[in-house]
Amino acid sequence: MKLFHVAGSCSLATRIALEEAGADYETVKVDFASGEQTKPEYLAINPKGRVPALATDKGVLTENVALLAYIAQTHPAKNLAPLDDAFAFAKMQSFNAYLSSTVHVNHSHKGRGYRWASEESSFADMKRKVPETMAASFDLIDREMLVGPWVMGEQFTVADCYLYTLTRWLEGDGVDVARFPKVADHMRRMAERPSVKAALA
Amino acid sequence: MKLFHVAGSCSLATRIALEEAGADYETVKVDFASGEQTKPEYLAINPKGRVPALATDKGVLTENVALLAYIAQTHPAKNLAPLDDAFAFAKMQSFNAYLSSTVHVNHSHKGRGYRWASEESSFADMKRKVPETMAASFDLIDREMLVGPWVMGEQFTVADCYLYTLTRWLEGDGVDVARFPKVADHMRRMAERPSVKAALA
Repeated sequence: MKLFHVAGSCSLATRIALEEAGADYETVKVDFASGEQTKPEYLAINPKGRVPALATDKGVLTENVALLAYIAQTHPAKNLAPLDDAFAFAKMQSFNAYLSSTVHVNHSHKGRGYRWASEESSFADMKRKVPETMAASFDLIDREMLVGPWVMGEQFTVADCYLYTLTRWLEGDGVDVARFPKVADHMRRMAERPSVKAALA
Repeated sequence: MKLFHVAGSCSLATRIALEEAGADYETVKVDFASGEQTKPEYLAINPKGRVPALATDKGVLTENVALLAYIAQTHPAKNLAPLDDAFAFAKMQSFNAYLSSTVHVNHSHKGRGYRWASEESSFADMKRKVPETMAASFDLIDREMLVGPWVMGEQFTVADCYLYTLTRWLEGDGVDVARFPKVADHMRRMAERPSVKAALA
């Protein structure tokens, strides 16, 4: 498999999961600085012009929510998701969907306001609000969603890879992770995992 | 099961899927007009203050991406997802994740700009861009993602319930669905299904 990724982006979640799974994969950097994601060559791989994209022998998959579950399902021996319990699996997918559709979207308003507005004044307004929206999301995660020690409780899952990836954005977004004790503890323990060290190397 | 929903909202997707599954459920309207979703009673059910929320005998589930897969997995005889093919399941989940994290988010900038900004001028700017962002998303869906006749091809899946729900927003967002022939055809065929008629009744 080939993982198309950008350092520091949300593709880190899928990369950590591939490491946890012991998957056979290589990485291909997509150079956002030069706009590689808007060129025909990359759009032929992922017409959305985003990362992550995972090229498999059956075709290309995109979206962390789908990729993380796919990696867990195709490496069942690694126990990266509650595959035999539809309710628990849905809880995990719900957590990942919240990260994707709310938390990541909040963060994107800092530097990618042009996706949803056209005026410089709007971009500045959006950017100012990011610390508030990110803090609100992580407060909810800390109080209501993260069971602890891992997202789903005692079992480490792919949701942990995704949470860690977005937690890393807090400092740059002007939010002190120490405000969220369970998330801060989760971040520390994730940083010690060989999968994370390998993915960040 | 109890489905907490709002007419016209994205909770329609889960309601159609419950109808397709022949699930045993009742509906509970959440009155967004009076702010019921911000009251302690509803926040005890769904701390996010959103819909859909599905109360099951094991607990509450939220997020369409998770709920739709859960309904398919718990009603396997109805064949509402490619449950025995991890790659095809991931393709379906990827489609649903795109609707959730990109298309729904584009739409929300019309009336809920206050989530991401604070100035009236920003809300107006965001609102003006919605026809452009929604058209771009549905162009991508029409060209690259919707296999036809259903989202995944010959097999009807829960992704069809979700696509139909967001397609219904296009007119109010100032976009003519006729620009997207496969989506327009999909919308017509969905409207004829008993599940859709029951969910909209």
